[in-house]
Amino acid sequence: MSGPESEFDLIQRYFAEPAAAGSAMSCVRLGIGDDAALLGVESGHELVVSVDTLVEGTHFFPDHPSASLGHKALAANLSDLAAMGADPLGVVLSLTLPQVDHAWLAGFSEGFLTLAEAAGVALVGGDTNRGPRSISVTVLGQVPAGQALRRSGARPGDRLVVSGTLGGAAAGLAMEGERRDRGGPIPDSADPGLTRLFWPEARLGLGRMLRNRARAAIDVSDGLLADLGHLCAASGCGARVDWPVIPRDPLLGRLPDTQARQLALAGGEDYELLFALPPGESLDLLAFSVDSALTVIGEFVEGNAVEVVDENGMRLDAEHVGHDHFAGLK
Amino acid sequence: MSGPESEFDLIQRYFAEPAAAGSAMSCVRLGIGDDAALLGVESGHELVVSVDTLVEGTHFFPDHPSASLGHKALAANLSDLAAMGADPLGVVLSLTLPQVDHAWLAGFSEGFLTLAEAAGVALVGGDTNRGPRSISVTVLGQVPAGQALRRSGARPGDRLVVSGTLGGAAAGLAMEGERRDRGGPIPDSADPGLTRLFWPEARLGLGRMLRNRARAAIDVSDGLLADLGHLCAASGCGARVDWPVIPRDPLLGRLPDTQARQLALAGGEDYELLFALPPGESLDLLAFSVDSALTVIGEFVEGNAVEVVDENGMRLDAEHVGHDHFAGLK
Repeated sequence: MSGPESEFDLIQRYFAEPAAAGSAMSCVRLGIGDDAALLGVESGHELVVSVDTLVEGTHFFPDHPSASLGHKALAANLSDLAAMGADPLGVVLSLTLPQVDHAWLAGFSEGFLTLAEAAGVALVGGDTNRGPRSISVTVLGQVPAGQALRRSGARPGDRLVVSGTLGGAAAGLAMEGERRDRGGPIPDSADPGLTRLFWPEARLGLGRMLRNRARAAIDVSDGLLADLGHLCAASGCGARVDWPVIPRDPLLGRLPDTQARQLALAGGEDYELLFALPPGESLDLLAFSVDSALTVIGEFVEGNAVEVVDENGMRLDAEHVGHDHFAGLK
Repeated sequence: MSGPESEFDLIQRYFAEPAAAGSAMSCVRLGIGDDAALLGVESGHELVVSVDTLVEGTHFFPDHPSASLGHKALAANLSDLAAMGADPLGVVLSLTLPQVDHAWLAGFSEGFLTLAEAAGVALVGGDTNRGPRSISVTVLGQVPAGQALRRSGARPGDRLVVSGTLGGAAAGLAMEGERRDRGGPIPDSADPGLTRLFWPEARLGLGRMLRNRARAAIDVSDGLLADLGHLCAASGCGARVDWPVIPRDPLLGRLPDTQARQLALAGGEDYELLFALPPGESLDLLAFSVDSALTVIGEFVEGNAVEVVDENGMRLDAEHVGHDHFAGLK
């Protein structure tokens, strides 16, 4: 701390430079520093908007490394754009902090801005407030009119496909929790086993490829079964999930079988895409053009139930749980 | 409280209905309930975006009536659109609450949605989280390309004009504080003297009229002198403020002269518009077409200083202070 610092100074000091750089991006007409930012949306496109807030004590531990938090706060929002098949345009950040902690801010802004640069999205607006720590990010994107991937649209007979692997973020969180219970040291965000927990990726490239190919899509933020439930409810159909083929994160191998299955089916924050691929679309062609693995893990069916079956087609008694911040802290 | 309630239920229960109504608004293509919302931006327009967060203990007292809070959180953001000369398109809300309090939520959503309806803006996205109470609102608007009112652009010789009256919100807050110190009852948001504190208005109509007329504009959220300072810094000029003609809220008459002057010059949250009107533009014509009074309170000048002068042209020793959440809680 170096004495009182104004809200304006904080935004300028930690976040303004890349906004100026961002102005070179054709869509940013006016960045941080005025009453509002100005962005261009290409003609024939729709604007896509989503908000996500991370609260200390609910979504992250007080000692969560700040660079990882900056990254995660943005990645979670970019994932919503990916799930809509949208291209990012800009992002606004509202940061509430108990005090001015320069080391924390330097880490946070580095994590946030490094991902912003990689994703080609400019930070166009910011707001800093004093209070219990929380991070609210609103991301803006665009998608050709009529081509957004909604949750509705899946039909019985469509293949159920997921990208990457599942359970890695939840397994990392479980191990983190055990380390904490043992009174372990500050978490090491550079641990390669914890990449999914600390440095999640948004599947923007895949989302873009799914336009006009997938019939419906959602990102796996609350857990496979919870998000599949949302997809089915919006589409008015059910789904069958084939447990044996679900792509599991290697980290799950370090946990007991029952816990591993629970985390693969219901663990949150993997930010993979889950989508409905109609019979005519080739999965191979799609997989060839994106950098994440794609796995058919089941099928959409008539009705409204989500079932998980084993290698013999027998129904598993899996709990349908997801994140719910009001049903109890995780 | 009626048992655990899911995040999804809260948004649906308190905020979803008007989103459906909002879908009738031509710009809303997809409202609450998917990974993101979809909005149409008219061709030839730029997208305007601004975020503002209110934190309990920093921006409002725990017993602030929730309907007023819902109103204020939206009004503060709409005011940023007004200051850009923009028309509202949609708004996203991220609400963090310590617990599910139905009475609080019913009041908050009523205040928020009533203003949203009056302003013709749809709530298109929402996010509810558990944690210390705070309200983060991101508002989206559009403005014909190139016509946004920026803070830069004022020139020496331009008249300095303000809408409405100043100091009313700050005077209300001061009286509220005294009432609290005396251990008074829960504040009465229906008190007509406290309208500026509890039910501020965004000057959207005036902002729209200022396009192509004003050279620069800002909304008075941090206090007249602080916001004028921002306008001057962005425009690269100074300003002279004529103290005797500043339009004062009637509530200031109940306070000692020194305090009244301080609140008129530096009190925040009045949400009036402050703008630079070039010599060729008629103030009378403009005043005729909007419903708020317009007063010339000074002039932009060469240099970079903001001066306040009395009826004899003598410089007043006014403190240049504004809201600064990191320089100390108000």
